[in-house]
Amino acid sequence: LTAIVNVGDDIVLHGLTICPDLDTITYTLAGLNNEELGWGLTGETWRVMSELRELGGEAWFGLGDRDLATHLYRSERLRNGATKAEVTKELCARHGVAVELIPVTNDIFETVLDTELGPMGFQDYFVKNHHSVTVNAITFNQDNAAVSRPALDALFSSERIVIAPSNPLLSLAPLLHFPDVRAALANRRQDVVAVSPIVGGSAIKGPADRLLGEFGYAVSPVGVARYLYDHFGTIIGTWVIDEADAAYEEELVSLGYNVAVTTTMMTTPENEERLAKAVLS
Amino acid sequence: LTAIVNVGDDIVLHGLTICPDLDTITYTLAGLNNEELGWGLTGETWRVMSELRELGGEAWFGLGDRDLATHLYRSERLRNGATKAEVTKELCARHGVAVELIPVTNDIFETVLDTELGPMGFQDYFVKNHHSVTVNAITFNQDNAAVSRPALDALFSSERIVIAPSNPLLSLAPLLHFPDVRAALANRRQDVVAVSPIVGGSAIKGPADRLLGEFGYAVSPVGVARYLYDHFGTIIGTWVIDEADAAYEEELVSLGYNVAVTTTMMTTPENEERLAKAVLS
Repeated sequence: LTAIVNVGDDIVLHGLTICPDLDTITYTLAGLNNEELGWGLTGETWRVMSELRELGGEAWFGLGDRDLATHLYRSERLRNGATKAEVTKELCARHGVAVELIPVTNDIFETVLDTELGPMGFQDYFVKNHHSVTVNAITFNQDNAAVSRPALDALFSSERIVIAPSNPLLSLAPLLHFPDVRAALANRRQDVVAVSPIVGGSAIKGPADRLLGEFGYAVSPVGVARYLYDHFGTIIGTWVIDEADAAYEEELVSLGYNVAVTTTMMTTPENEERLAKAVLS
Repeated sequence: LTAIVNVGDDIVLHGLTICPDLDTITYTLAGLNNEELGWGLTGETWRVMSELRELGGEAWFGLGDRDLATHLYRSERLRNGATKAEVTKELCARHGVAVELIPVTNDIFETVLDTELGPMGFQDYFVKNHHSVTVNAITFNQDNAAVSRPALDALFSSERIVIAPSNPLLSLAPLLHFPDVRAALANRRQDVVAVSPIVGGSAIKGPADRLLGEFGYAVSPVGVARYLYDHFGTIIGTWVIDEADAAYEEELVSLGYNVAVTTTMMTTPENEERLAKAVLS
């Protein structure tokens, strides 16, 4: 199992290179995620942040003491010439994570949101502004960023490609933005299974529903499918949608997709297993 | 009272810009110094460092959780375009430090030691290698670093210039290396009072005694005076030496210096006051 991970949310703050998606996945797969907060590490403390706040520093982006060690580690390794992929491998090994996580690119690649308050980076939008400002466009700050070789290899050689129920505009777009990723998916369309991030008219998590509306798409599995088709072409063979959205099956079929209807909310181990089976069958 | 502070010991580690001399002075003047350790902040905790060690990160340079907030604050401000001087002013204001601290330069300026193990930065030598390797030469990594304007102004306008009993090779040299600093001191030689960092044949603190020997100088106030004269010319009017070294008075006078003999070890408030009076009188 290989996960190709978005790095558009990455931010350099306080001199530290922070990769929230890579870290969240690593922490979660290691069983170290903070269930109370919904992000960060379990058993976290906040000494540095509280001192930084007293100094009048930028404290809107919560960095726990345990979490900071990850960012210090990564920042030092990057400064010494390691790639994000290499650092990710090291951190996963240290935490005993067996799934292979691959940052989609090792190059500079940052999601930039053109909002009603002007352009801002992902974390500015998501955390500092609580993803509550209107977004007019989503672009990427990059300098010819290339998909990493192992990520491309995985897309070509894996039995199946699953598109996770992530925010299509903020989390899938930064992956699908790469022509090489789109070409790989288009080429293997029948092996590409996407799980709808919209269930019963709202996002599983985050502002996907609001953003779909702002970009003129229906807040439904069909809206997501149309958004991805309009922006990235024919790349998905099968949609997995929730039972709550069974009514959309027909329209998705008419658009040329295979459709599987199941429980997609991973609220219990049984549901997780059922979804995994649907995705693999 | 203005202190012009060495920045040659500064290091970028884990992505953070760390200025140990500026921080130590700030913490000490704020009454926040850790008396047990002899460095760092009082009431310090070590969560981040202990997690970093578990991750297999570089943990030889001790960074407490409170202290880290300083480095995060500085690194973010520098990244946003502030100078080291501006950040220093902000941190001093936040800690209620009334003495004006001025980094000698806002430019890149790093002490490099050519040692028996090869060239290394100051902290590599001092902390990682416990200042226990032989030093062949001391140089500075810089790109036309300039003395900051307020530092020069202070050197020209202050009533008296005191050279603190710091390590002449590691802490004074990075200040006196600047031609503008030497010119200001030479010009006002009679107002320049230096306190000997060697007392009774050994350094007050650190490896000054060992280094003086390695560089072929006597471990005495006379050795320090000769080292500074050989490298930086005629810049000192008066030497303040400890009673333990009264025997060197005559030789220093014969070299053209005024000499004051007093208790120079600042071990009690009375001693501190006596030394301050000697320096100002």
